[in-house]
Amino acid sequence: MATLLLTKEQVRGLIRVPDVIAAVEDAFRAFSGGEVVQPPYMGLHMSEPRAEIDFKACYHAETERVSLKASSGGFRDNPGRYSLPNGMGTVLLFDGSNGALLCAMDGSLLTGFRTGAAGAVSVRAMAREDARVLAMIGTGNQARMQIRAIREVIGIDRIHAWGRSPAGLAAFKTDIEAEFGLPVIAAGSAQEAVAEADIVVTTTRASGIVLQAGWLRPGTHVVAIGADQKGKQELSPEIFHTARIVADSRTQCREKGEVQHAIRAGLVADVHAEIGEVLLGRAPGRETRDQITIFDSTGMAIQDTTTAALILRLAQERGIGTPFDFLAPET
Amino acid sequence: MATLLLTKEQVRGLIRVPDVIAAVEDAFRAFSGGEVVQPPYMGLHMSEPRAEIDFKACYHAETERVSLKASSGGFRDNPGRYSLPNGMGTVLLFDGSNGALLCAMDGSLLTGFRTGAAGAVSVRAMAREDARVLAMIGTGNQARMQIRAIREVIGIDRIHAWGRSPAGLAAFKTDIEAEFGLPVIAAGSAQEAVAEADIVVTTTRASGIVLQAGWLRPGTHVVAIGADQKGKQELSPEIFHTARIVADSRTQCREKGEVQHAIRAGLVADVHAEIGEVLLGRAPGRETRDQITIFDSTGMAIQDTTTAALILRLAQERGIGTPFDFLAPET
Repeated sequence: MATLLLTKEQVRGLIRVPDVIAAVEDAFRAFSGGEVVQPPYMGLHMSEPRAEIDFKACYHAETERVSLKASSGGFRDNPGRYSLPNGMGTVLLFDGSNGALLCAMDGSLLTGFRTGAAGAVSVRAMAREDARVLAMIGTGNQARMQIRAIREVIGIDRIHAWGRSPAGLAAFKTDIEAEFGLPVIAAGSAQEAVAEADIVVTTTRASGIVLQAGWLRPGTHVVAIGADQKGKQELSPEIFHTARIVADSRTQCREKGEVQHAIRAGLVADVHAEIGEVLLGRAPGRETRDQITIFDSTGMAIQDTTTAALILRLAQERGIGTPFDFLAPET
Repeated sequence: MATLLLTKEQVRGLIRVPDVIAAVEDAFRAFSGGEVVQPPYMGLHMSEPRAEIDFKACYHAETERVSLKASSGGFRDNPGRYSLPNGMGTVLLFDGSNGALLCAMDGSLLTGFRTGAAGAVSVRAMAREDARVLAMIGTGNQARMQIRAIREVIGIDRIHAWGRSPAGLAAFKTDIEAEFGLPVIAAGSAQEAVAEADIVVTTTRASGIVLQAGWLRPGTHVVAIGADQKGKQELSPEIFHTARIVADSRTQCREKGEVQHAIRAGLVADVHAEIGEVLLGRAPGRETRDQITIFDSTGMAIQDTTTAALILRLAQERGIGTPFDFLAPET
C-alpha cells in the first residue's frame, strides 16, 4: 500500500480551474445532500502573534474519501528568516473504506483554487444571465483566483477594481490586463467600483465594512469571500435586509459568515438556502432580474476533499508523483 | 525545507520504552503547566459500522512543536480484503515557529507506546514504593505495552492476569513469560486476579464493569486505561468513592474517563488532581500506605507531540528516514 506524494509544483501542473469548479459543485451538492461528515475545525494559535495552524477534516461518503488539510498562516517573518512562505499547507487523503493513507500532497495551492471555484459556482447558479461587468473589492491573490474561475462560467466585459492599497490596485490592474486581456478600471472608491457592476466580489481581509447599502445596483450578485471568522465583516448588514442570501454552509455562515452580523442585528432571520440546495433544485436561486443575491462563502472542508480527490485521480492517470510505502517491511 | 518521512519499521527501530516514558512525563508536566494548546479532537465515523478515522492535534509552546495524528480503527475486513491492519496511523509534526512540515511518520506504533508509558508514569508517581505484584485485567496488545513500560519503573515479582477470552489469557501468559521471564498466574476471575495485587491495570474494551468495590486491597494503585469515550466503563463507580483519583486531563476525564460515572452518580465531586500537577509538585500524590489511588487515562494529543518529537530527534541524529521536499522546484 503505497502513499502517493505530490509536491507543490506537481499539484500546480495538475490543477485546472474548470476541473476544480466541477469538484466544488460536487462538494456543495454532497454537503447539502447530507453525504458529508464535516466536524468543526481545530485551530491552533501559535506563540507568535497572529500565526496559526488549522486542521480541517471531512468524510465524503459517496466517494469514500477522507481529507485532512493542515494550513498555516500569519508567519510574517518566514520569507526573511527562513526563506519560506508565510503560510503553507499539507493535505492528507484517506480511503474511507479501509483507512489507508492514499496521498500526501502540498496544499498551498488548493485553498485558493477551491475558494475561487466556489465564487464561480455561485455566479453560474445565482447571477443574472446577462451579467458581464465585475467589481472586485480587494486586489490580492484571492481576487485573482476569483477572476480566473468566474471567467470560466461567464463572459466578462470589464472589471472595476478597488483596494485599500493604491500600489496593490495598480499591480492588480497590470497583472489582470496582462493575464486575461480584460480592461481593468481602477476605481477611486469602493462605491465607485460597484456602481456599474453586475457581480461584486469582496476579498478583503474583512477587518471593516467596505460596502454600504444603497451602493449596489438592483440585480447585482455579490460573492462575499472575506469573512470566514467570528467578527470579520466586509458588507454593511443593511445590504442583507432585502437580498436573497445563499450560504455554503447554513450553520457555518450563521456563526462566522458575513450574514452573522445581519442576523445579530435582526435584519434577517436566516439565510435563504445553501448553494447546494439551489444546485440540487431543492431551493430556488435568483427569482427576479432585480433581486440582489449574496453568496456567503466561509469555506468548507468538503471542498478540499473533492478537490484533493480530483488531483490524486489526475496524478494517478498521468503517472505523476512519488510513491512511498509507510508500511514497507525493513530493507 | 525537506520533510523527513519515516516508515513503521523505521519508527520501530527508533522508539524505546524508557525514552517514551520521559517524553510522556514531559507531556503531562507541560499540559498541567499550561504550555499546551490541545483542542477537542475531530472524529469521523465511516459508513462501515464501527469504523472511524480520528484526528488529534496539539501545540507544545515550549518546544515549538505541533503534531497531528490521524488514527483509523475498526476496519474489520481490512486483513482479509486488503491485507491491511484494521487500524493505522499517520503523524505529522510541524515547526510551530514557522509552520513547516518537519516530519510525516507512520503512527501505528506510537499510540501503544505512549499509552503504556502513561501507565508507567502514574506507577512511578502514585504506587506504593514496595509495589511488586501486578494484576492485568485485559490481555490484549495494550496490556503487553503496560507491562513493558511498568517494568522500567518498578521491579515486578509476578503478574496475575484475567481476560474474558480463555484463549487470549493463555496466549498472554505464554507471551509475557517468554518475553520477560516473569511468572504469570492465569486467574479464574477478575476478583481472583486483583486479590493480591499492588497495582491493577485495566485494559479491556470497557464495555462493562469488570472490577467491583471491595475487591481491591488497601494501598492498591489502579491504572485505568480502557475508558476513553463517553459511556465506556471498566470500574464500578463505588471504587472511586474513597480513592484518590488522578486524571491525565481533568476536563477530558470528567467527560469520558472512568471517573465520569462516579461523578454522575454523585460518589465523587471531581478528580483530586492531574498527573502533571503531581509531577510538578503542585498537588500531593499518594499520602498514605493504605490509600487506593486511581490513574484515569484517556489519552492526550500532547503525548503524541512529545513522543513524535522524540522519534524525529532520534531519526535525525542517526540519519534514518527519507527526506522529501514538498516545496521543491519543478525538476
